[in-house]
Amino acid sequence: MAGSFSELELLGQHARAAARVLRTLDTAVKNDALQAIGETILESQQTILVANARDLDAGREAGLSAPLLERLMLSEARLAGIVDGVSAVAALNDPVGESFDGRVLPNGLRVSKRRVPIGVIGVIYESRPNVTVDIAALCLKSGNAVVMRGGKEAVYSNRALADAVALGCERTGVPAAAVQLVRTQERGFVLEMLRANRHIDMIIPRGGPGLHQFALENATIPVITGGIGICHVYVDESADAAKVVPIVYNAKVQRPTVCNALDTLLIHKDRADELLPQIADELGKADVALCCDPQAYEILEDYPFAEVAEPEDFDTEFLSLVLAIKVVDSFDDALEHIHQHSTGHSDAIITEDYTNAMWFVNEVDSAAVYVNASTRFTDGGQFGLGAEVAISTQRLHARGPMALQELTTYKWVILGDGQVRP
Amino acid sequence: MAGSFSELELLGQHARAAARVLRTLDTAVKNDALQAIGETILESQQTILVANARDLDAGREAGLSAPLLERLMLSEARLAGIVDGVSAVAALNDPVGESFDGRVLPNGLRVSKRRVPIGVIGVIYESRPNVTVDIAALCLKSGNAVVMRGGKEAVYSNRALADAVALGCERTGVPAAAVQLVRTQERGFVLEMLRANRHIDMIIPRGGPGLHQFALENATIPVITGGIGICHVYVDESADAAKVVPIVYNAKVQRPTVCNALDTLLIHKDRADELLPQIADELGKADVALCCDPQAYEILEDYPFAEVAEPEDFDTEFLSLVLAIKVVDSFDDALEHIHQHSTGHSDAIITEDYTNAMWFVNEVDSAAVYVNASTRFTDGGQFGLGAEVAISTQRLHARGPMALQELTTYKWVILGDGQVRP
Repeated sequence: MAGSFSELELLGQHARAAARVLRTLDTAVKNDALQAIGETILESQQTILVANARDLDAGREAGLSAPLLERLMLSEARLAGIVDGVSAVAALNDPVGESFDGRVLPNGLRVSKRRVPIGVIGVIYESRPNVTVDIAALCLKSGNAVVMRGGKEAVYSNRALADAVALGCERTGVPAAAVQLVRTQERGFVLEMLRANRHIDMIIPRGGPGLHQFALENATIPVITGGIGICHVYVDESADAAKVVPIVYNAKVQRPTVCNALDTLLIHKDRADELLPQIADELGKADVALCCDPQAYEILEDYPFAEVAEPEDFDTEFLSLVLAIKVVDSFDDALEHIHQHSTGHSDAIITEDYTNAMWFVNEVDSAAVYVNASTRFTDGGQFGLGAEVAISTQRLHARGPMALQELTTYKWVILGDGQVRP
Repeated sequence: MAGSFSELELLGQHARAAARVLRTLDTAVKNDALQAIGETILESQQTILVANARDLDAGREAGLSAPLLERLMLSEARLAGIVDGVSAVAALNDPVGESFDGRVLPNGLRVSKRRVPIGVIGVIYESRPNVTVDIAALCLKSGNAVVMRGGKEAVYSNRALADAVALGCERTGVPAAAVQLVRTQERGFVLEMLRANRHIDMIIPRGGPGLHQFALENATIPVITGGIGICHVYVDESADAAKVVPIVYNAKVQRPTVCNALDTLLIHKDRADELLPQIADELGKADVALCCDPQAYEILEDYPFAEVAEPEDFDTEFLSLVLAIKVVDSFDDALEHIHQHSTGHSDAIITEDYTNAMWFVNEVDSAAVYVNASTRFTDGGQFGLGAEVAISTQRLHARGPMALQELTTYKWVILGDGQVRP
């Protein structure tokens, strides 16, 4: 433990010093550094791929599943994609320095808020090595130093990528300590990181519910929690049939492994007979399994991929081609179900009724509330923010997709000419 | 412990239910409730004063200091002041429902953020009973339910005030559980509260550094930390002498017991001989003790209230009529001192040099950064926010004075006509 503490102390001091430089850098300097990072990644391509091969070998030996190995794997094409991502971040608007909420007080004081970087961001993530570069680019662009602790499966890949990033920084005069990768794989280090208030200002855990829960339980630093979405689509009595099947299909099938994918379909009892078979026909083509409440099962029992739901199916984030279906008696029952079971991520109504649409938007207290659209849009890129650090399902600081602006805070700037408080 | 857990469970469920109602209330309904609360407090005046007398008796028996008893004491005049405060909150703009950052995406989706209440706020506070009503009014106006845990010194006063608040809510059809006071004084309850993620969305500790540290260390719920300010005024080489003495005097003397009061005066070496005696003359009239670094002491040694500073004086929030003074060789040395010793609350420069003013504002990373004004302005009321829940010195969610808006979060509202993600 003493050893890992020293490493954190060292990383932390370097990060603080780097943050002090970063927060005053011009946008052009930060963009140059991002450009250089893209170049150094391409120059280091062979080194990175060799390091990645070492991780893949170790992963195969350790019996990692095929999907995990697939997520871990880098290739020339994937590196090119990573570099494109860095360029895209360079092209984004720099949120730092923006002045807002300005006012002149009766005593003549000019008071405004100015957007500034948060300082030092800690990121704890799991297997995918591209996260190393994505996060580095977003933190750099927003003027934050970052301390990253990646998963042990990607240890060599992450080191090679972080070295390339550091080289890109150095070439452009940005402190290499702007982006630091934790070298130790000691497990106690994560706990140290979560409690390093002097060195880190915000922790972003990127991983499964276990990681989020661990961070929440143990951190003394503010943590951005998120990533868990039990998402609902409610098909209202007045729903336009032409919109129902495409939205439900898209929300469930387009990418079932992510947090904004549909988990529970609620349907008004007066539309169930008509629409559930249409939905089942379409979902069946994509091999979606249906977990039906008794009323829905009565309608769908002839479909071989439909079965009777267990109560816990309505509290499950499936992250796979499984859909829970429940027939509700009324709009209010749908609201009540969502109130009881939603994780506050993304929930949608399909309706042509103005009052129900507005009431749904007012009543459903989730990070993203939709009318007549797929829940799959809850994403920084899709919302036009250009990038995404994480999706927050907590309520403080940021909610929903977090982009560059959510990596900033503000300070109050007060310009006077001698004012004192009466 | 089992007993207190049950109380929290009960309070928490009631608070959640109340929050669900509160978040949909019209501004007019909330204002009516605030009006009614003012009336019920005045109607209950005798009951409240009797309860307060009981607290005061117990406090005297327990040997509370005179200042603590003074803070604990209520009177007809103080109750009238509390009621005026409630009316002032009613007059504030309701932040809930505001729509912002709206845009139309290329696919036709209308995306915007809508300001909504946070949900359930937990407040842990110490002796002053007026906090009970202040916080209740601010939470109610912003559509949040609140669970309050006051100090044991004010237990009867707080109960009487909370009963009056609940009655005001009931009279206007607002759930009485909108504002709940914790009844138990068991110490373990605070810890339970800090970890009640299911029931509470944000914790505001209002008290000394010990309480803040305890909350930070133990909470799994987001905590707003703040209230600690080692505040600096730097007198630059170019300072206008006519501004120096009034600002320093005001920042130190106007109310020395609060977090935005001045702690350390930094002065450029070329102005020390001229200005330090002027400052000492004025501060001497208010019985301010001066802790001087060796250079400052050389200038001020004839003042009986000047003495040589200990190193820790420059890391002390005095909260009293004591001022640390240091002579610096340059603007950069002043910045470096602030960087090393500031707690990020409020720091000021007195200068006529444009570049130094701008650079100070850029470089000093505190919640409030001042040019040519007293640090005492860091306050929700002074900044024109109308009220204040707390002053945050953390970096997430809110920084500096927190008012109604900082008791809100947002949700994304997405209005479509059948869009699916390609």
